[in-house]
Amino acid sequence: MPRYKSVVEYDGTGFCGWQRQKDSLSIQQVLEDAIFSLSKEKTTVFASGRTDAGVHARGQVVHFDLSLDIPANKIMAAVNHFSRPSTIALLSIEEVDVTFHARFSAKQKYYEYKIVNRRAPLTIDDNKAYHEPIHLNVEEMNKAAKYLLGEHDFTSFRDSECQAQSPVKTVDAVYVEQNGENISIHAQAKSFLHHMVRNIAGTLCLVGKGKIAASDMNDILSSLDRSKAGPTAPACGLYLNKVVY
Amino acid sequence: MPRYKSVVEYDGTGFCGWQRQKDSLSIQQVLEDAIFSLSKEKTTVFASGRTDAGVHARGQVVHFDLSLDIPANKIMAAVNHFSRPSTIALLSIEEVDVTFHARFSAKQKYYEYKIVNRRAPLTIDDNKAYHEPIHLNVEEMNKAAKYLLGEHDFTSFRDSECQAQSPVKTVDAVYVEQNGENISIHAQAKSFLHHMVRNIAGTLCLVGKGKIAASDMNDILSSLDRSKAGPTAPACGLYLNKVVY
Repeated sequence: MPRYKSVVEYDGTGFCGWQRQKDSLSIQQVLEDAIFSLSKEKTTVFASGRTDAGVHARGQVVHFDLSLDIPANKIMAAVNHFSRPSTIALLSIEEVDVTFHARFSAKQKYYEYKIVNRRAPLTIDDNKAYHEPIHLNVEEMNKAAKYLLGEHDFTSFRDSECQAQSPVKTVDAVYVEQNGENISIHAQAKSFLHHMVRNIAGTLCLVGKGKIAASDMNDILSSLDRSKAGPTAPACGLYLNKVVY
Repeated sequence: MPRYKSVVEYDGTGFCGWQRQKDSLSIQQVLEDAIFSLSKEKTTVFASGRTDAGVHARGQVVHFDLSLDIPANKIMAAVNHFSRPSTIALLSIEEVDVTFHARFSAKQKYYEYKIVNRRAPLTIDDNKAYHEPIHLNVEEMNKAAKYLLGEHDFTSFRDSECQAQSPVKTVDAVYVEQNGENISIHAQAKSFLHHMVRNIAGTLCLVGKGKIAASDMNDILSSLDRSKAGPTAPACGLYLNKVVY
């Protein structure tokens, strides 16, 4: 019973997110259906983490088992064929040991939150980035981001529906990069709470707009109160770029 | 009768191109209709050049006249409002002297042809870049591109429907950049023939795939024969990035 690991890219627009749901189309369903079209076998595809509706991935990692030993490259070609016209593609695939688990074996996840900071509405980047018309001070955002580094109780940035056992996470990197009107918030950790990156992004935007001070980030973090932090930034800006094992 | 100059961005997907046509939606029509919604005045919007169906612009430049002196910023806000939900936006606007002409005053145009060079189909970049699954040798493409620099008769790269008076153009820069799987062909000139950048891109891709040699570019150029060059690369990869006056 071979196990396969695959790196998956998708445009999350129009999907209900990673997880299979009854009445709307998920990334998981498209992949499981495409694998079934090839193998005639019902299998469950496990991801490194669930992404929300509208969230994109450049490097989601999944695993699944098949009873037949089908060459990995044949699976990739078939899944990329059968998943059309969905905007989902397997970028690479390999057979792995059955001890590998896309979620539990993950050592580091890299997220990017893309913002286009300009007055004019988005065209080419519509649904691919968050449009913020008010000027963002990236220097102040970076000052605020530094308070989040390391191990903390991230209750202030945790969604009420989060099912994680503990609100304590270790953030290994969080910083803001600017290239003209394009601003990216990068966040890196072994794992995140539900909505944690988007809640951090929403709070950093408040700092960038000058509505709160960079040092307020410390108070928000230690308050352990979700209502003290900023709003959840829209899903369309978020990208799961990479998972390291 | 004030004249306005504006920088325009658009996602060309789904449009019949820049130029107004009877039975399909053009960028020009959306802009003229949006200006009419504000000013109740029929005006013609002139562009630095017509872009084909599916071609994108990060920095198209247009001009138009109005009989009423409306503040430029008010026009920009209104056009960006009335052109919704079209993926067209005015990025900036200013009042200019009536001697300014978006097409005839242009001194330099910057095009970029975006290629994603990988086996897997495109998802996030679908319709925003050309997908080439066969490996491209960028070094050879750059060698071939050098033959195009300077003043030449570009008949070999000219569309049969091109209405330019002369096939002689001066290419000031043409080079290929690679960043992982992302490859961009940059081309810069005062003006180009119809389909010239896409025909150059299609020919450079033949070089990149090893189907013709880099030095063949010289023979293709001097043959003055369109059939000797490569195919017209798909519109979705082309971006008009900037026009300098």
